Amino acid sequence: MHGLTAELFPICRSITGQGVRETLGHIQNRIPISIHEVPSGTQVFDWIVPSEWNIRDAYIKNLRGERVVDFLQSNLHVVGYSSPVRRRMRFSELKQHLHTLPDHPDWIPYRTSYYKESWGFCLSHNQLLRLTDEEYDVCIDATLTEGHLTYGEILLPGQIQDEVLISTHVCHPSLCNDNLSGIAVATWLTEWLRAQPRRYSYRVLFIPATIGSITWLSRHQDEAARIKHGLVLTGIGDAGPCTYKKSRRGNTEIDRAIVHALTHSGISHNVTDFIPYGYDERQYCSPGFNLAVGCLSRTPHSQYPEYHTSADNLDFVKPQALAESLGVCQTAIEILEGNKTYLNQNPRCEPQLGKRGLYRAIGGQAGEKSMEMAMLWVLNLSDGHHTLLDIAERSQLPFAAVARAASDLIAHALLAPVPERSPAA
Amino acid sequence: MHGLTAELFPICRSITGQGVRETLGHIQNRIPISIHEVPSGTQVFDWIVPSEWNIRDAYIKNLRGERVVDFLQSNLHVVGYSSPVRRRMRFSELKQHLHTLPDHPDWIPYRTSYYKESWGFCLSHNQLLRLTDEEYDVCIDATLTEGHLTYGEILLPGQIQDEVLISTHVCHPSLCNDNLSGIAVATWLTEWLRAQPRRYSYRVLFIPATIGSITWLSRHQDEAARIKHGLVLTGIGDAGPCTYKKSRRGNTEIDRAIVHALTHSGISHNVTDFIPYGYDERQYCSPGFNLAVGCLSRTPHSQYPEYHTSADNLDFVKPQALAESLGVCQTAIEILEGNKTYLNQNPRCEPQLGKRGLYRAIGGQAGEKSMEMAMLWVLNLSDGHHTLLDIAERSQLPFAAVARAASDLIAHALLAPVPERSPAA
Amino acid sequence: MHGLTAELFPICRSITGQGVRETLGHIQNRIPISIHEVPSGTQVFDWIVPSEWNIRDAYIKNLRGERVVDFLQSNLHVVGYSSPVRRRMRFSELKQHLHTLPDHPDWIPYRTSYYKESWGFCLSHNQLLRLTDEEYDVCIDATLTEGHLTYGEILLPGQIQDEVLISTHVCHPSLCNDNLSGIAVATWLTEWLRAQPRRYSYRVLFIPATIGSITWLSRHQDEAARIKHGLVLTGIGDAGPCTYKKSRRGNTEIDRAIVHALTHSGISHNVTDFIPYGYDERQYCSPGFNLAVGCLSRTPHSQYPEYHTSADNLDFVKPQALAESLGVCQTAIEILEGNKTYLNQNPRCEPQLGKRGLYRAIGGQAGEKSMEMAMLWVLNLSDGHHTLLDIAERSQLPFAAVARAASDLIAHALLAPVPERSPAA
Repeated sequence: MHGLTAELFPICRSITGQGVRETLGHIQNRIPISIHEVPSGTQVFDWIVPSEWNIRDAYIKNLRGERVVDFLQSNLHVVGYSSPVRRRMRFSELKQHLHTLPDHPDWIPYRTSYYKESWGFCLSHNQLLRLTDEEYDVCIDATLTEGHLTYGEILLPGQIQDEVLISTHVCHPSLCNDNLSGIAVATWLTEWLRAQPRRYSYRVLFIPATIGSITWLSRHQDEAARIKHGLVLTGIGDAGPCTYKKSRRGNTEIDRAIVHALTHSGISHNVTDFIPYGYDERQYCSPGFNLAVGCLSRTPHSQYPEYHTSADNLDFVKPQALAESLGVCQTAIEILEGNKTYLNQNPRCEPQLGKRGLYRAIGGQAGEKSMEMAMLWVLNLSDGHHTLLDIAERSQLPFAAVARAASDLIAHALLAPVPERSPAA
Repeated sequence: MHGLTAELFPICRSITGQGVRETLGHIQNRIPISIHEVPSGTQVFDWIVPSEWNIRDAYIKNLRGERVVDFLQSNLHVVGYSSPVRRRMRFSELKQHLHTLPDHPDWIPYRTSYYKESWGFCLSHNQLLRLTDEEYDVCIDATLTEGHLTYGEILLPGQIQDEVLISTHVCHPSLCNDNLSGIAVATWLTEWLRAQPRRYSYRVLFIPATIGSITWLSRHQDEAARIKHGLVLTGIGDAGPCTYKKSRRGNTEIDRAIVHALTHSGISHNVTDFIPYGYDERQYCSPGFNLAVGCLSRTPHSQYPEYHTSADNLDFVKPQALAESLGVCQTAIEILEGNKTYLNQNPRCEPQLGKRGLYRAIGGQAGEKSMEMAMLWVLNLSDGHHTLLDIAERSQLPFAAVARAASDLIAHALLAPVPERSPAA
Repeated sequence: MHGLTAELFPICRSITGQGVRETLGHIQNRIPISIHEVPSGTQVFDWIVPSEWNIRDAYIKNLRGERVVDFLQSNLHVVGYSSPVRRRMRFSELKQHLHTLPDHPDWIPYRTSYYKESWGFCLSHNQLLRLTDEEYDVCIDATLTEGHLTYGEILLPGQIQDEVLISTHVCHPSLCNDNLSGIAVATWLTEWLRAQPRRYSYRVLFIPATIGSITWLSRHQDEAARIKHGLVLTGIGDAGPCTYKKSRRGNTEIDRAIVHALTHSGISHNVTDFIPYGYDERQYCSPGFNLAVGCLSRTPHSQYPEYHTSADNLDFVKPQALAESLGVCQTAIEILEGNKTYLNQNPRCEPQLGKRGLYRAIGGQAGEKSMEMAMLWVLNLSDGHHTLLDIAERSQLPFAAVARAASDLIAHALLAPVPERSPAA
């Protein structure tokens, strides 16, 4: 995953343009996503798909011809969606278009101006201090024209049409944690899902933030209704603790599955309530959709200084953190897949597990063995009102142990699925 | 408010009599309350309006003619509702009618005997120690005769008949915090309410404790049914933290409004559950009424040594505490007035706030701006199931910010009131 | 109670056999329980009543004729339900049948093998270390033959058929806390119940663990449906804090009654949630019954090293602990008996308690008197929706004070029972 991150790092992405297409191409080398193009000007709910932005070069040159700020050195140097400029100007005018971080004088900030026509440069504060009150040649060789919004999508069909959504944004330039980490984990998760038997269908979206999810939702309202559980993956590769932000509904199955996975993962983690600020969960959880979509990150976006700066680089993302995050997603999906309701077939008193070889022979020893406990819990709570996740939560046992116990009990005819109600009944 | 307190301090009040009338007269100088008289002997639920008590003078004189205890020095010296006495008696007999506070030897306690005919004097313990075993002339020049129970009332009509009740007791003699502080805050609150646009109608009662609220409730059962929210104000002027005692129902709108106001006030405060002991909320919250009435105080009545003693004087009540308490009431009333439910008019994904000038133009900056957050919260939760107070509680933003955001969104047609259901529908 | 414990201590009990009969005989000397015999081979739900096990003698003798392990010294020396053996064998073979506790080298462990034919000896680790690699004569003079499972039962009828179940196990040999303590408390509780007026009927079971409750439940499904509240008593005599394990349903009246009794007892205690491991509550709380049965102990079974060893002896059980545990049971039963719902007959405002002599005459004193508070709470919450236990919990007053207040109020016609609904209505 860190390799894919490194591969994608140099590309200059924005919410539209060649950078996104190039990025989706790299993903397509690994998983068969389809690529969709939506024309500029398309109305998507309250928004309009913007013009497509492409940039070839940009610089600030002194009159001696030296590039004192150079887009080719870092694509963060240009404010995203800057309109084209090619003009000589005094420093006093130029200065109003420069963004720096005085508290981190070596870092370049990341800034955008998608919906208000504007231009600007981002540079390190030390760079700014070296500029003098002279004239500069300023060039942003960009185009902002009719074009398309581009996104990638893959649907992995399962036994049922109910869907699990994985969504990650692809619109940030050379920033690693935000969000090449999300792209990498979503790609690996998709590869893993393709090889798994699937009860649910899985839809994975690689989209520009905000306008991408709004565009997809506005054009797929029927599909959106099939999404039963969802996850936005973002900023998921730094060394901080995992952070799960719950869905707006707050106690849905995906919320409980992720919290359970984190609790039993041994990974340091925090769980926070939904707030209507953050990533694309804002759109999925808008009141007209109110989908069960949470957001999995490591350190929350506004709580690390490297956020949206050139310091969010390849060193900032850790291979182990990516692997852990992927593991949490996989465990949560295993929970969703296995979370069914069963009926104890011998509900009056315990069945005699011993005669079936399911219980230790010599009694009287202190202590409880975990697989036996899992079986006792599953038997005790399988009254038709508790799912396996309910049982795992109440017993504080890992879901996998509970699911394994259920499977053993089914094999001995002590447990059976709750019969499906026939539609005619 | 402290001035009114000082003005009312010398008056000898009880649950009936001229002291109450005189007090209500002073209030009438500021706000146009009506004064009601209910005859002694009137049955009010399980109680009977008692005889009217008036007192002109009282003393204990030694045989040298010196007043060793003198009502004219402090009206606390006489047990409230003492029956008339004029007799010479030995100290051994007199002693059984004397009340002191040995732990606070300079303070005079406050005692009453409303419903059992009795008489007595209260004095400082040091005064008691100076009395010798001789004969004394004892005089209580009081009358306990057919008369009236007197209370003050004002109704400020609003757009709707649903009422907010403010109730404060007026039956304590020279005690400042309990309850001249309540009288002062209720008076100022009424003045402020008269100048406000009002959705609710407001009823303010200045009544003797217990028998006053029982009398009012027994004669206004129809009006009582209109009371949707209410507050008893008492002991609201000392320097201690604010204390809000919740209504019997415990999670009503007034409870939440006061708790919200306190939380965002910066004032140190405590919130306690209802108990059926205290002030007139006991009657308003009796099971046959069960009104949403809580009680706002500073230090709870039994938790400061000055309570019901001569030390509850003008120094004990602080102008700043009175002002803070008034402010909490005003904020809570603003919440009740503004606490409506709205519908997001663009519920599918977020509306584009930026194009309406409601959102910052340059993206990518860390941190959340509070007015933008308030708008996002209002939009996200305005699904017809959340009031603005629900939204303020969940977002942990001040109600005023949420109400302001709602107002801005209404101005941009992004939010609309939930349509009233027509009675015919 | 400690005397009965001492009396029963030497008897070799198991889940069937003469030891159980002898034990029940001792109990019958105090309370008139009936003794029931269920034949071996009887199907009881998923289980079969096992063969009856009786043992006369057992030993390991060296070739010099010395008994190096001797059942007559401690009945813990033989693994419960050992099949008969009489054979000379080398130490290497014998060793596989020996159980010790290396961490507690002076203690003999307690082991059983009820449902898998096997034999073995338990001995102190120090005894084991003294054995040498020679030949031994091994004898277990036991029979494992068709016979009966034996249990004791008493039903104390009350005004209504609804039952309270007390269940304790009688199948452990010379172990005091587990469970002669339970037998002793259940016996004393029964004696006390016989002398009490009873609203509920009480059923007390003295049964072998697991197979005993399964047998009783399988043969008394109608009676089981009448059990409204129940308690398993076990390990209730050690010096540790009381532990109450709640019923599977978790907030039933028995759960609340025991928690309330413990809270006001002054005894150090813990309350834990139900888990499907432990004692006969496992069967009573199986999903097909789901009875409101909790389990009262002192230190939980797996949390003291003496558990299931020879150190669980007469010194380990404390007379004071037994008395305290009995007291908790009695208080909880008094709560169940008295926990009714009443209606305030004067629900609009408070009734005037003073004129009925129920309230102090001289007002104005700080502090609340507890009986007056109990009356105010009962009046305030007796709206038909709160039982006396609800009121005790909310007021944090002891149930006895609340019940006494209710009784005083009934005597003054201020409170009346909620009228029974007639079946025809």
